[in-house]
Amino acid sequence: MKDIKAEIVSVGTELLLGQIVNTNATWISECLAEQGISVYYHTVVGDNKNRLTTIFSDADKRSDIVFITGGLGPTEDDLTREAFQKLSGLEIIEDEATIIKMEQISAKNNRTMTPNNRKQSHTFKGAMVLKNSVGIAPGIIVDYNNTLWIFMPGVPPREMKAIMMEEVIPYLTRKLKLDAVIHSRMLRFIGIGGESQLEHELQSLISNQTNPTIAPLASEGEVALRLTAKANSLREADKLIDGLENKITAIVGQYLYGYDQVNIGQKVFDLLKEQQLTIASAESLTGGAFAASIVDHQGASEVFNGAAVVYQSFSKAKALNIDEKLLETHGTVSKECAEAMSSQVKLTYQSTIGISFTGVAGPGQFENQEEGTVFISICDQDNSYNTQKFQFHGDRKTVRNRAVKKAYEMVYYQLKRE
Amino acid sequence: MKDIKAEIVSVGTELLLGQIVNTNATWISECLAEQGISVYYHTVVGDNKNRLTTIFSDADKRSDIVFITGGLGPTEDDLTREAFQKLSGLEIIEDEATIIKMEQISAKNNRTMTPNNRKQSHTFKGAMVLKNSVGIAPGIIVDYNNTLWIFMPGVPPREMKAIMMEEVIPYLTRKLKLDAVIHSRMLRFIGIGGESQLEHELQSLISNQTNPTIAPLASEGEVALRLTAKANSLREADKLIDGLENKITAIVGQYLYGYDQVNIGQKVFDLLKEQQLTIASAESLTGGAFAASIVDHQGASEVFNGAAVVYQSFSKAKALNIDEKLLETHGTVSKECAEAMSSQVKLTYQSTIGISFTGVAGPGQFENQEEGTVFISICDQDNSYNTQKFQFHGDRKTVRNRAVKKAYEMVYYQLKRE
Repeated sequence: MKDIKAEIVSVGTELLLGQIVNTNATWISECLAEQGISVYYHTVVGDNKNRLTTIFSDADKRSDIVFITGGLGPTEDDLTREAFQKLSGLEIIEDEATIIKMEQISAKNNRTMTPNNRKQSHTFKGAMVLKNSVGIAPGIIVDYNNTLWIFMPGVPPREMKAIMMEEVIPYLTRKLKLDAVIHSRMLRFIGIGGESQLEHELQSLISNQTNPTIAPLASEGEVALRLTAKANSLREADKLIDGLENKITAIVGQYLYGYDQVNIGQKVFDLLKEQQLTIASAESLTGGAFAASIVDHQGASEVFNGAAVVYQSFSKAKALNIDEKLLETHGTVSKECAEAMSSQVKLTYQSTIGISFTGVAGPGQFENQEEGTVFISICDQDNSYNTQKFQFHGDRKTVRNRAVKKAYEMVYYQLKRE
Repeated sequence: MKDIKAEIVSVGTELLLGQIVNTNATWISECLAEQGISVYYHTVVGDNKNRLTTIFSDADKRSDIVFITGGLGPTEDDLTREAFQKLSGLEIIEDEATIIKMEQISAKNNRTMTPNNRKQSHTFKGAMVLKNSVGIAPGIIVDYNNTLWIFMPGVPPREMKAIMMEEVIPYLTRKLKLDAVIHSRMLRFIGIGGESQLEHELQSLISNQTNPTIAPLASEGEVALRLTAKANSLREADKLIDGLENKITAIVGQYLYGYDQVNIGQKVFDLLKEQQLTIASAESLTGGAFAASIVDHQGASEVFNGAAVVYQSFSKAKALNIDEKLLETHGTVSKECAEAMSSQVKLTYQSTIGISFTGVAGPGQFENQEEGTVFISICDQDNSYNTQKFQFHGDRKTVRNRAVKKAYEMVYYQLKRE
C-alpha cells in the first residue's frame, strides 16, 4: 500500500486567540490513524482569505488528502470556499438539496431566509456534496490537482463528526481501498528510573525499529513505551507488536505492570480486589490525595476502608492515638512517625493493609527536613513494615503527586510478591 | 505600534496521531493575545527532521516571532534543535548551568547521568538560555534572520508555562516595548444558577459591548465573565474594564466572589485565614477530595486540621465515634448522619468548623437514595448546623467534584455573613 499523506487545516481566528482548543484536529487524527492514514501536519489559520489561500497552496504541494474544518458558515468572516476558489479557479454554486432543506426549516420556524443563509449551501461545480445529518452546512469533497480536498463545518464539532463517520470514512474506504491499519499498544513500566534510563537499556532496539516503531513517553514517576505497527490487518499488526514486546520484556520485563489505559492505580486496585485485601491510609502531606484517587474507582468500597488525614501534629495524636512522646522524640517527618501512622490507621479503620505518608510538601524546610522529603510506610497483613524515604523535586502539587504514585508502586510490588 | 506577527509550532507525533490535544498552542495564544501580539498560525509537525526544517523555513519567511514547543527532550526522537540547526547553521553547545543542575539532581538521587540526559542541556551558540524553574530542559531564545525564535519544552505543560511567565513575557515586554495591550479581567460568580441565567440578566449589556467585550464562561458549578479591553496602556484598559464592571455588579453584584485566578477554594482559604478559623472534614463519597483540594494551598496548616475519610459504615462508627444506632435508624446517607459527621470531625480534629459529605456517587442507588444524592453539613463555631441536600447529575467524578465545589460555596456564604 502506498503511504497516504494527509493533513488537517483548521480555520478560525478564535483558535488563534486561544479562546477554544483545537479538539477537531485531534479527533480527525485519531480517526485517520485507525484507518491507516498518516497525518503529517495540523495547521490553524484565521479567517483571512490570503493566508488561507497560501496554506491551501502549501497543502496542495505536499499532501494527498487535505481535511479542512471551519469557515463554511453564513457570515462574512467565513472565507474557506472563496480562498479555495482563488487557488483552484473552481466555480462556486448553490447546492439545490441544501437550499430545499433550508427553506423547509425556515418555513417550519416562520423565518425568512436571508441572503447570508444561502451561503451555507455553497459548493464547487463538480464536487461531491456530503450530507450533514445533524446540521445545515454540508461537507464537500473535491478532487483537484491530484489531491482530495474534504471540507467540513468546524463548529459544533458534532456536525464534523457526523459527516466524517457517515460520509467521509465510507467514501475513503471505497476510494482508497483501505486495508492497512495503524495499531498501537502501550506498555507501562514502573520503578525503572526515568525515560532516559529506559531508553538507555533499549537503545539498540529503539534505533533499529521501523515497524513497529517504539516511542517512549514519560509522565510523573512512570514510563511507557508506545509500540505502533502498520500492517494489512489488525491481526497482523498485533503479531508484529507481540514480537517486539517479547524482545523488550526480555530486557526490562520485570518493570512492566500493564497495558494501554490501565494505570498503576487501577492495577493496584485490581490486585487488592483479587487478593481480597482492604487498605486504609494515614496522610499528612498528601492531604487525602491517595484516598481520593482510590475512590475514583467504581466499587472502591470493596478495597478501601477509609483514611485519616492528620495534617497537624496534634491530629496525629488525637485521631490516630499516636504517642505524643514518639512525635516529640523523632519528629513527625520520620520513619518512626510513618510506621506509627501506618499501623494505627490499619487498626482504626480495620483494614488488612495500612499505608502512611508524612513529609515536607514545601516550600521550605520543616523540622529540619528538606522540602520534598517524604516517608511512605506500609504496614501489611502480618504487621511487618515496608518503610522508605524519598526525595522528590518540584512544587507542592508535584511532590504530593509523586508521593501518591510512589505509594502505588510500593503496594504494587508488595502485592505482586504475595 | 507595529503589528507583530507571531506563530506557534508544536512538535510531536503524538499530536498528529490524535493521542493528545494541543492545549499548549491554545495557552500560548491566550497569553500572547493579552500582550497584544497577534498569532497568525499554529502548526503541528511530527518528530521528523526534514519536515521540521521545512516548517521552520516557512515560519522564517512570514513571522516576527516563532514559538516552538516540544522535541527538546533526551530521546532520539527529539529533533527540534537539529532541525533548526539545519536551517540556521548555528552551532549546538551544552549549557553549563543546566549540566551542573542535572549532575546535582543525579547525585542526590544516586543515579548516573546517561549520555542521553546531557542532550537536555543543549542550546545554540550565542543564544539566551531561559531558566526552567520546575524542570530540567531550559528554554532558548535565538535572534536569527530578523526573527525571534523561542524554544520551550512541550511536556509537561507546566514547564512551558513557567518559562513563558517567568522568562519569555518579561523578555518580550522589554524587547518589544509593548505599548498596546489587550487586557482581560475575569469576574467570578457563584450561586447564580448557570451561564444562561447570568447571560439572561446581562443580555443587553453583552450584545451592545464592543470594547471591552464580555465573554461568559461556565465551569462545573460556577460562572465567570471575561471582560477584555484593547487600549494603549494597561491603565486605560483597566479604566475601560472598571466602567463595565460597575454596570455588571449593579445587576448581579451579590454573586461576585472574586477575580481572575482566584477560585472559590482560594477565596474560602483566604477567608478562613483572615478570620483565624480552622476546618476539618468528614468525607464519605468525596473520599478526601475536599481535604486534598485544601492542602493545595501553601500554608494550609494554618486553616486545615485534618480529615476523616470514613468510606465504610463501620469506619464512621469507629473513626468518628458515631452512634451505630443513628446509622441504623437513619442510614448513612441522611441529614442525621451528615450532622453527626460534621460535629464529630470538628471534635476529633479540634477545629472551629467541621464539614461533612455523605451521599451516593453512583453508579446506581444506595440505601434507597438516588445516585447523585449528597448531604453536606457544616457544624460552625457555635455548634449550629447548616445542612443541605443536593441532587447532582453526572458520573462518579462529576458528582464528587460538584459536591466539593458546593461545599466551598456553602462555607463562603457562611463566612461572608460573619
